[in-house]
Amino acid sequence: MSKGRVEAFSDGVFAVAITILVFNVRAPNVPSGQLWHALGAQWPTYAAYVASFMTIGIMWINHHAMFERIARVDRPLLMLNLLLLMAIVLVPFPTQMMGDFIPRGGADARAAATVYGALGVTIAIFYGLLWTYALTHPILLIPQLDAAAALGASWRFLFGFVMYLACIPLAQVSPIAVVFLLAAAAIYYAFERLPEIDT
Amino acid sequence: MSKGRVEAFSDGVFAVAITILVFNVRAPNVPSGQLWHALGAQWPTYAAYVASFMTIGIMWINHHAMFERIARVDRPLLMLNLLLLMAIVLVPFPTQMMGDFIPRGGADARAAATVYGALGVTIAIFYGLLWTYALTHPILLIPQLDAAAALGASWRFLFGFVMYLACIPLAQVSPIAVVFLLAAAAIYYAFERLPEIDT
Amino acid sequence: MSKGRVEAFSDGVFAVAITILVFNVRAPNVPSGQLWHALGAQWPTYAAYVASFMTIGIMWINHHAMFERIARVDRPLLMLNLLLLMAIVLVPFPTQMMGDFIPRGGADARAAATVYGALGVTIAIFYGLLWTYALTHPILLIPQLDAAAALGASWRFLFGFVMYLACIPLAQVSPIAVVFLLAAAAIYYAFERLPEIDT
Amino acid sequence: MSKGRVEAFSDGVFAVAITILVFNVRAPNVPSGQLWHALGAQWPTYAAYVASFMTIGIMWINHHAMFERIARVDRPLLMLNLLLLMAIVLVPFPTQMMGDFIPRGGADARAAATVYGALGVTIAIFYGLLWTYALTHPILLIPQLDAAAALGASWRFLFGFVMYLACIPLAQVSPIAVVFLLAAAAIYYAFERLPEIDT
Repeated sequence: MSKGRVEAFSDGVFAVAITILVFNVRAPNVPSGQLWHALGAQWPTYAAYVASFMTIGIMWINHHAMFERIARVDRPLLMLNLLLLMAIVLVPFPTQMMGDFIPRGGADARAAATVYGALGVTIAIFYGLLWTYALTHPILLIPQLDAAAALGASWRFLFGFVMYLACIPLAQVSPIAVVFLLAAAAIYYAFERLPEIDT
Repeated sequence: MSKGRVEAFSDGVFAVAITILVFNVRAPNVPSGQLWHALGAQWPTYAAYVASFMTIGIMWINHHAMFERIARVDRPLLMLNLLLLMAIVLVPFPTQMMGDFIPRGGADARAAATVYGALGVTIAIFYGLLWTYALTHPILLIPQLDAAAALGASWRFLFGFVMYLACIPLAQVSPIAVVFLLAAAAIYYAFERLPEIDT
Repeated sequence: MSKGRVEAFSDGVFAVAITILVFNVRAPNVPSGQLWHALGAQWPTYAAYVASFMTIGIMWINHHAMFERIARVDRPLLMLNLLLLMAIVLVPFPTQMMGDFIPRGGADARAAATVYGALGVTIAIFYGLLWTYALTHPILLIPQLDAAAALGASWRFLFGFVMYLACIPLAQVSPIAVVFLLAAAAIYYAFERLPEIDT
Repeated sequence: MSKGRVEAFSDGVFAVAITILVFNVRAPNVPSGQLWHALGAQWPTYAAYVASFMTIGIMWINHHAMFERIARVDRPLLMLNLLLLMAIVLVPFPTQMMGDFIPRGGADARAAATVYGALGVTIAIFYGLLWTYALTHPILLIPQLDAAAALGASWRFLFGFVMYLACIPLAQVSPIAVVFLLAAAAIYYAFERLPEIDT
């Protein structure tokens, strides 16, 4: 199994997962003349769409940042990558719940936001496992990867882990704030600078 | 992140987004013997399918026209591209609304067509931001890109912006006319000539 | 726009269109203890799935056979290819109708099978237009394409046209026979021999 | 038709099929305040998601293991590959049934698990047919493929066949055990060692 094939397959999964988020954005079934009002009332659906789209988009960028530092793949790496994709593909599930249950409020809104945060933590853990496995098997890494660059990439994954973990208590206080935290993280990320490697 | 990967990921998103338009074209649930009649009655669904398919198809062609002139990508360009894809992936949403609410007429039909036009304007703005960012960062552009070619590409994006903007007032007068305007724009575009660049 | 990009995008559309056929195959919503019986009763759904999967698969093979003979693409070819894809992506629509309305019988079953045949005819016409356009613009063709090979490819598209056209009268007599005709055509095609070209 | 195109198309189908498994994981429609409870009650849906995701992932790895040993494709191989993909794309169907009918128990749960096992057997048979066809047409194989490596790959496909066949009687005793058997097989597979070939 070449590294290129794993990347191409992963890219395909990312592309499908990010695109099917639109299925959560549907025209509401309303009585005649109520469409504008109903479209406005489902604003948490749009906010969740934006947050999840940017989140999956950034996960895709991180996935490539990692594979730029990997030179070859073995069976355990392949399985860890599958586990990671398995969690990422689930993102549309809590996204749908956010749109459906945030307007309802109460325990259901908190549950939806908690599941979103918990899935984020799971994804960050799988990223960490994949990266730790690669770092502890240097034969899988590109030769020019130095310790500083490796550490830099590690911090990046840790940042995601802490942010998603913070979503869980935040969800108990304000479920909609979880959506804004994820969107804000994406904006922050857009301006972040990482030392580049030549590939 | 190489330019090739960004293009391949974007192509995947375009391919999925254009294909899932078919989910808006479903067999109606009708009493026995009414299928032919019901299939005919949902003609706005077919018209919206054709208009959206050609629109996404042309956006894909434009996306490539732009990336043929781009030599490398940086983080802000990556984020602007994600924003652009985020808007394009939403196209099936107003497409579904057109099919569902045009036959109903009145305020709901106008709302559906207005959302369609507003999404088009949003997409045109993101195209414009992406292209403006690239033009003001010449290190990202191919060396042989001259000012005339850059201006030519800019006009093209402006044309889309104006057309989608025109859809919004048009939607207040005749929602179905928005569908025909988009289809007509696609036909016009098929015969348009642009100076080609050697890549 | 390079030929390779058009092929890659078309491949993506084919891959998504062929995969989403599975959405027509759903577990029925039945009273307790009725699942086996209900799964058996929806056999036209499975037959339509097989026929449509093989049909799209063969269309993909034909698409490549055509593009192996094409060296470069221009704007009209790009638009004709989009039109062709627009028709192919619709295949899940009559496939769903076959599964839903064949068991009901009568006028609705005939309508479903007629739409299937009419879509097939439309696809064959777009294939013919694309191929005719390419043949009449030799600059788009590979140099080693001789007249015999071009004619061979033309016969192939004509065969599909005639077969889909025959589906329309057949649908008036026996809608389910349309499914078997399409499946039989796929089996026939598996053993067909065409002179290969060196690419 | 080049081998690379067949692989790319197959990769696309695998990527879409594995991603759309998430459509089976939906937020339940529950009375206010019942979301946590309802999310817990649909645990067979999550178990089926994990088992099917890992199963399709491993089928993708096996598909590449096979095509690494294949040098070129002919028409019958192309059709056998289409048949194989046709069966793999169906995996979301019994996955949905597992989630829907395992909680109901009784004959319906047994039916759902039996269909899952039967589909697995079908997939294993198509893998076997594809591999047998390739082995009996050495012109399609890579030159360095020796008898031992070919036999090793054959054992791998036989293992899948036997495991899926065992699912059918197991489904009559304990439908949920089928899910755990498939998940366990995926874990086992993650640690399996096969002699690699240089490609």
